[in-house]
Amino acid sequence: MKLNILGCYSATPRTFTNPTSQVLEIKNHLFLIDCGEGTQVQLRKNKIKFARIKHIFISHLHGDHYFGLVGLISTFRLLTREAELHIYGPKGIKEIITLQMKLADSWTNYPLIFHELTSKESELIYEDDKVEVHTIPLLHRVYTNGFLFKEKPGERKLNIDAVEQANIDQAYYRKLKQGADVENKDGELIKNETVTYSPDKQKTYAFCSDTAYNESVIPIIKNADTLYHESTFLEKHAHLAPKTKHSTAKEAATIAKKANVGKLILGHYSTRYDDLDEFIREASPIFKNVKLADDGKIFKF
Amino acid sequence: MKLNILGCYSATPRTFTNPTSQVLEIKNHLFLIDCGEGTQVQLRKNKIKFARIKHIFISHLHGDHYFGLVGLISTFRLLTREAELHIYGPKGIKEIITLQMKLADSWTNYPLIFHELTSKESELIYEDDKVEVHTIPLLHRVYTNGFLFKEKPGERKLNIDAVEQANIDQAYYRKLKQGADVENKDGELIKNETVTYSPDKQKTYAFCSDTAYNESVIPIIKNADTLYHESTFLEKHAHLAPKTKHSTAKEAATIAKKANVGKLILGHYSTRYDDLDEFIREASPIFKNVKLADDGKIFKF
Repeated sequence: MKLNILGCYSATPRTFTNPTSQVLEIKNHLFLIDCGEGTQVQLRKNKIKFARIKHIFISHLHGDHYFGLVGLISTFRLLTREAELHIYGPKGIKEIITLQMKLADSWTNYPLIFHELTSKESELIYEDDKVEVHTIPLLHRVYTNGFLFKEKPGERKLNIDAVEQANIDQAYYRKLKQGADVENKDGELIKNETVTYSPDKQKTYAFCSDTAYNESVIPIIKNADTLYHESTFLEKHAHLAPKTKHSTAKEAATIAKKANVGKLILGHYSTRYDDLDEFIREASPIFKNVKLADDGKIFKF
Repeated sequence: MKLNILGCYSATPRTFTNPTSQVLEIKNHLFLIDCGEGTQVQLRKNKIKFARIKHIFISHLHGDHYFGLVGLISTFRLLTREAELHIYGPKGIKEIITLQMKLADSWTNYPLIFHELTSKESELIYEDDKVEVHTIPLLHRVYTNGFLFKEKPGERKLNIDAVEQANIDQAYYRKLKQGADVENKDGELIKNETVTYSPDKQKTYAFCSDTAYNESVIPIIKNADTLYHESTFLEKHAHLAPKTKHSTAKEAATIAKKANVGKLILGHYSTRYDDLDEFIREASPIFKNVKLADDGKIFKF
């Protein structure tokens, strides 16, 4: 998986910082997660091909997470896109976009498909043969979901020496990769696990922004390889967190630790902080493998 | 007057070009004209104080002219603005903005006042003691207005030698500046024009974007000091202009000439052109005093 941060600051776009948006590359898919104002320019700056984006996930309807969406949809139209575009986001997002298209008398010439979310339980919202996406219900001032991206199990790998020694016909290799036991040329049943290796571990990425400290996400994101968790505040401003329903770096680290994730990426910093290293200093005593998101940064895992 | 171009390219925001937005400073007012995506960042880059903007004029509801508006309104809220903000634009603009505020559960803490436009005739939409703003109905694919900004006549200037020679009491100077005839200390009536000079010429600025070639604007913008007129295309692509209801540089120059304006500023270039000097070469044989708009450029007149 490859995660390209396009923007990771809270509130308003500024000269050198962008509101939330990120691109996750997974099994040859590009998923766009949130789409603050300026995202289409950030996509250009990060040299991401617009045509590869087929699915956009919007966490909630605060402007710093979606004000760039209508412009991106409109730009796709101007670029004469033909491929379907799927938008996953809170109920209301379809009305916002279609109202603006109606008043501009500019409908997309490609299929624009909205998947409006209302559930307060985690649900499977996207699935193909390689990837699943589940919602992560978050605790914010408006209806908000994070998203859990999970690779599906890949094929088993042939232990080619064992396969040949077991005298299995090549015609059965496909079945072996799929996990089946097969008969060899002598008519003996060969147990799959004796001639194959387990597939690569399935990677998972959990995106949690924006949210107050919320332990109910832990079972959903348990053991994720990478967790992006908002840390709008430092503990010295912890009194602001419950009211605004945001988290501190310490709280993000606590969630990461309790969920036993592999890596924590912090972001959604309040613009009041100049020294972002303070976020690392606050989080790392609780959870060691912590990184700072920044606009344009790429994480591979 | 001072015109600060924030963005002047058509269609989509790109890495180094911005969609339409400009700030007109006139008699100590700052008027924002159109507000494409990224305008708030352009305001920051051009060091324009957000608090000074009290009136925003939106020409039409195509995204490259207003997708930045909702974000700017939202940023004003985050900056704890208290002053009224007036938005002038086509009917529908209020619904677009209020729908997004409703779904974000984020209402402005300052008065947000919409002046929705529907008239197809030029009308006076703003007036104070120093400035008037009139609409300029344009010919585009959706309902569109340009805007004519007119200084009101200033006070007459005292010819102080003549005033003293005419033996006029200082108490009457104010009336003289306002154009009245007054009695002097000897009870004689003094004709105003014998002791005062005319006020400075009233400046006018006409903004015309987006529009097909449309001679019906000429009586409205007649003798304007400066005309911004869109020139999406060059004549070599003139066949695209009627269909998209845009103009060529030659057409913009023709309007400038027929309206006898002082200066023509071209903008709203299609992104297909790399060499903008071609716009000057096309327009200048028809209208000599022609300039190219560019993002960040300032014109004083």
